[in-house]
Amino acid sequence: MSGITDTLIIGAGFSGLAAARSLHLRGKKFMLVEARDRLGGRTYTKRFDDGRYVDLGGQWIGPTQDRMYALAREHNVEWYATYNEGKNILDLNRKLRPYTGLIPKMDVLSLVNIDLVLKRLESLARQVPLESPWTAANAKDWDSLTLETFIRKHCHTRDCYKVVRAGLETVYACELNEISLLHALFYIHSGTSLNSLLSIENGAQQHRIKGGMQHLAEQIAAPFHEHIRYNHVVKSIVEDSDGLRVEGSNFSINARQVILAVPPVLARDIHFEPVLPLFKTQLLDKLSMGIVGKVVGLYDKPFWREDGFNGQVVADENKPFQTLFDSSPANGDYGTLLAFCIADRAREFFAHSEAERQSMALEHFTHYFGAKAATPLKYIDYCWATDGWSRGCYAGLYPTGAWTNFRGSLAKPVGRIHWAGTETSDIWYGYIEGAVRAGERAAQEVMHSES
Amino acid sequence: MSGITDTLIIGAGFSGLAAARSLHLRGKKFMLVEARDRLGGRTYTKRFDDGRYVDLGGQWIGPTQDRMYALAREHNVEWYATYNEGKNILDLNRKLRPYTGLIPKMDVLSLVNIDLVLKRLESLARQVPLESPWTAANAKDWDSLTLETFIRKHCHTRDCYKVVRAGLETVYACELNEISLLHALFYIHSGTSLNSLLSIENGAQQHRIKGGMQHLAEQIAAPFHEHIRYNHVVKSIVEDSDGLRVEGSNFSINARQVILAVPPVLARDIHFEPVLPLFKTQLLDKLSMGIVGKVVGLYDKPFWREDGFNGQVVADENKPFQTLFDSSPANGDYGTLLAFCIADRAREFFAHSEAERQSMALEHFTHYFGAKAATPLKYIDYCWATDGWSRGCYAGLYPTGAWTNFRGSLAKPVGRIHWAGTETSDIWYGYIEGAVRAGERAAQEVMHSES
Repeated sequence: MSGITDTLIIGAGFSGLAAARSLHLRGKKFMLVEARDRLGGRTYTKRFDDGRYVDLGGQWIGPTQDRMYALAREHNVEWYATYNEGKNILDLNRKLRPYTGLIPKMDVLSLVNIDLVLKRLESLARQVPLESPWTAANAKDWDSLTLETFIRKHCHTRDCYKVVRAGLETVYACELNEISLLHALFYIHSGTSLNSLLSIENGAQQHRIKGGMQHLAEQIAAPFHEHIRYNHVVKSIVEDSDGLRVEGSNFSINARQVILAVPPVLARDIHFEPVLPLFKTQLLDKLSMGIVGKVVGLYDKPFWREDGFNGQVVADENKPFQTLFDSSPANGDYGTLLAFCIADRAREFFAHSEAERQSMALEHFTHYFGAKAATPLKYIDYCWATDGWSRGCYAGLYPTGAWTNFRGSLAKPVGRIHWAGTETSDIWYGYIEGAVRAGERAAQEVMHSES
Repeated sequence: MSGITDTLIIGAGFSGLAAARSLHLRGKKFMLVEARDRLGGRTYTKRFDDGRYVDLGGQWIGPTQDRMYALAREHNVEWYATYNEGKNILDLNRKLRPYTGLIPKMDVLSLVNIDLVLKRLESLARQVPLESPWTAANAKDWDSLTLETFIRKHCHTRDCYKVVRAGLETVYACELNEISLLHALFYIHSGTSLNSLLSIENGAQQHRIKGGMQHLAEQIAAPFHEHIRYNHVVKSIVEDSDGLRVEGSNFSINARQVILAVPPVLARDIHFEPVLPLFKTQLLDKLSMGIVGKVVGLYDKPFWREDGFNGQVVADENKPFQTLFDSSPANGDYGTLLAFCIADRAREFFAHSEAERQSMALEHFTHYFGAKAATPLKYIDYCWATDGWSRGCYAGLYPTGAWTNFRGSLAKPVGRIHWAGTETSDIWYGYIEGAVRAGERAAQEVMHSES
């Protein structure tokens, strides 16, 4: 297949789709190529023959994610509140501690310490300018430290450290020694506050999309679906006097401009001619992806609710999953228990066979919620790091030095090539909202450079 | 072209060549494919029509690099001592401070401080087990810290910090906030001692190869040169029941085993079927390369020697080059001034045009060694980060967390695929000696798994 277009968008995740929507609304000519045979990128709704579904990728939206709510409204897609009533469980030092409300059952010293650490992160985060994290007054210091070093310094009890760690691993999808403190702070500020990132109520986990997140992606794409090409893997982008030639094994498309809306680790697999500037290639080489597995039990009803549990668990490093949530559909039509398996725990868990993983997972689900958890209708797990078209989730990780030495080179256009994807967004970096904003910004760049 | 062999080696740097030599000596069947049109990988001797040459890549050998001396002897390749007589220059706070002997002209406090910092690194490095850095008693702590944080903590004067930083940047080829303290310590121990890494006399810079380092590569390759294929870029490695099919755009070779002797950042550009294990892919995604440019003035004689200088300079961050050396050939037949331009300084310097770079470089050479430096026979510079078949030098960098979370997954064989390259060596990691040892170890693995 060969083709010609004005703007070629690469990647049909939310970022590429948002870019496409913007161009479509302005009557611009574009095509969108996608390596997978589906839409949605790092969102992925697995649907079963019986009509049930599970969100195996990004699934939540919350306050200040204005573009997401606007898109849902525009496409008549409904949302509903994440279930959040009843007892939480803290699984600490191999002991279950159910509790109601916001305050876990722990010694007062640890509770006060947790509160102080989170508040300290919160207040430092506000000092990081979102458009230029490397210009923060303490940028050089913070970018030489890892989040782990900071946490160890400020957690004075073992239990405080364990709980903070499980929480933050769930937020960043990595070991805390894999990212710089500056990146961690930027990420918090980018998502408004740490409290928001950690919360359901008034937080980033407040709402779900009815029908699953991919449903929204499909609705966004519907008006311009004829411009999307699936199973198109881009191998090279070559610039000549006329514009850009984008090639894959089965196609060649000429375009005046390109929007690259793929994770940074995949961008560096593409062959560019001329080669990308040093700042761009070296930064791409530095960014790796977080590792998240979602581990899911599907039940005919959310039985834990009847027993007074809200399905939420935080577990220390003795257990395979950092956190659990009630991920059931609206009205609890059936029950979905969702566990997050992250970083070292994911690398260990996913080294097992699927049968072993199922057995380990159900053992833990039963430990938390009783015998009914042992016999789900279905068991599903999905490790994003082994998905070749994402190579990890939720997002690209900035190691120490990367923000200050490379000063935001990721989002900068290179000639006719514009960079989207959630990693190029100042606002809600790493979230679907960030992906949408980045796609819309890239579309603006394209239209601006045309005029 | 299609072919069939027992062992296919990928990459004709010193590691691939050492592997080939081992197999050749044991009468084994093998082929070696190389992306470039030359041997040597990260060593590269640029030769001019008049017979003069410049080593633009790895160029030194020193004590305990036993395999390098043995290979040189075996192939009747001579070496000579790096010139090291006369005054050094310390360029600190925009002031030149020439000095003789080992002790720079600085205030006593800073001198004592420098000595303490280096001794501290030296003593911690000895606590890192070379075969398993992640098992050091303090591994988790050291792997959460960057080298920068350590240096800042232990340098109590500004001048101490500046001098230590310029020295260590030259050793590691990166900003000090880009690597973990554990990696820095491992690297020191791997190269015997920090004193050795920093020294000419009795150190890693003691000797040069007559005719340039690439000459040695060519001599090693001579006995089996008919098995080498140039301009062969490997795109995919697919395993089936018979073995491995290795394909590039212009060839397909079937082999029973493969030795991959390329930098980690290039290994991840290869498509593997089945996909590599999670530990391997995620670690490959984490390793970026150092950035070094070599900036060279070629003169009809090493005129600075007559003025009592040894050609060595250490300069603080006000200047474009961290360090300079006399890189002249044996007997000073002509003069070669070599400047190392590393990390942030390299990214800034190489953003200029070649004419601008030449003018900046000669201005600094003149500043150090007088008017004669302004008119070289030739000016040459080379940035390894823009060389597509190395993507950086000297070696892959371990960011924080990578040693402890991935525990040496780089060197582990994956089925029939064996991993070489200096980054897989415990001894002299990052040096040519490490490359040779890794290649020989991979060849042993191949022969062992055959029997």
